[in-house]
Amino acid sequence: MNGQTGYVSRLIESFSKLPGIGRKTASRLAYHVIHMNYEEAMEFAAAIVDARENLHYCACCQNLSDEELCPICADDARDRSLICVVERPRDIPSIEKTREFHGLYHVLHGLISPIDGIGPEQLKIKELLERVGKGDVKEIIMATNPTVEGEATALYLARLLNPFDVTVTRLAFGLPVGGDLEYADEVTLSRAIEGRQKIL
Amino acid sequence: MNGQTGYVSRLIESFSKLPGIGRKTASRLAYHVIHMNYEEAMEFAAAIVDARENLHYCACCQNLSDEELCPICADDARDRSLICVVERPRDIPSIEKTREFHGLYHVLHGLISPIDGIGPEQLKIKELLERVGKGDVKEIIMATNPTVEGEATALYLARLLNPFDVTVTRLAFGLPVGGDLEYADEVTLSRAIEGRQKIL
Repeated sequence: MNGQTGYVSRLIESFSKLPGIGRKTASRLAYHVIHMNYEEAMEFAAAIVDARENLHYCACCQNLSDEELCPICADDARDRSLICVVERPRDIPSIEKTREFHGLYHVLHGLISPIDGIGPEQLKIKELLERVGKGDVKEIIMATNPTVEGEATALYLARLLNPFDVTVTRLAFGLPVGGDLEYADEVTLSRAIEGRQKIL
Repeated sequence: MNGQTGYVSRLIESFSKLPGIGRKTASRLAYHVIHMNYEEAMEFAAAIVDARENLHYCACCQNLSDEELCPICADDARDRSLICVVERPRDIPSIEKTREFHGLYHVLHGLISPIDGIGPEQLKIKELLERVGKGDVKEIIMATNPTVEGEATALYLARLLNPFDVTVTRLAFGLPVGGDLEYADEVTLSRAIEGRQKIL
């Protein structure tokens, strides 16, 4: 017995299953929910249920969507000749924030990773090929993470897309803006030298 | 538009209302819930609803409880002559973990804090006096936090309990075990000197 009742422990248990949330934080969050405004707590529970019951994959780009088509695919102002391939739905807000990209997306829902038993057939690759097969696409930007798996997946897709009449590009590697040469690792620095650009 | 659909943003919004959870963490948690096991997500939502719908205050100690009496107050093996007064329900597990205390608790649900507009009448003080008035209680331990408000509340209660035939005690102040004199602040060190104890 630790003086916590069933309902309290159960809520702490649920919070502690979330990533990066230890027992202490889970307990703090649970007590916060217990003391928060009643309507807000109910809205929290409803948000979880709705997200799980009503979200599905966009029929076109495979992003999470409330409707058949996600807002980006449904937007006529977006450039349909350009597709940016990302690993996860949460990568899209990061790219949208730059306001640099006006094409459509394609979400793979993972990366090829033999060590985790994830092969190409588990990813939304077939769907990407179907989209490219329709012939409107001119360029595909591989925006997977700069990790071993991200690189391997980008390369795999580039080879797979070779027979199609599309340009496949990759996000540039280099120094992070505001960074310091002194703290750049050798691999990043080598890629920054390789990818050097003319100034004028 | 940031490429997030309504259900996703709404869940992120709910998470970001929790204390210590910023936008980035809220987004990470929301996507985790979206991808977690369906039953686990539903259990999470149900845990929130149940905690809010079914928890109430123990009729005796005012701790959060599933039943009329909390498990500690309902336990005949606990020493009914000893009451430990705490600020919040979450303080009880901390004290229970020590396995040093075998009495009952009393939860004030706050501390006197004129700056936040919290006076004695907003705390469960009347309920404490009623319990003490029944005459079984011999000692009351003030286990409020070692802060200005915690101290003030303990002192206020001690005065209020003066007419009753009970001993009112306070948790000891001093050096934290495993700490270092070098890093102890002057106030803690002064209290440690004041409270010095005979070794043999």
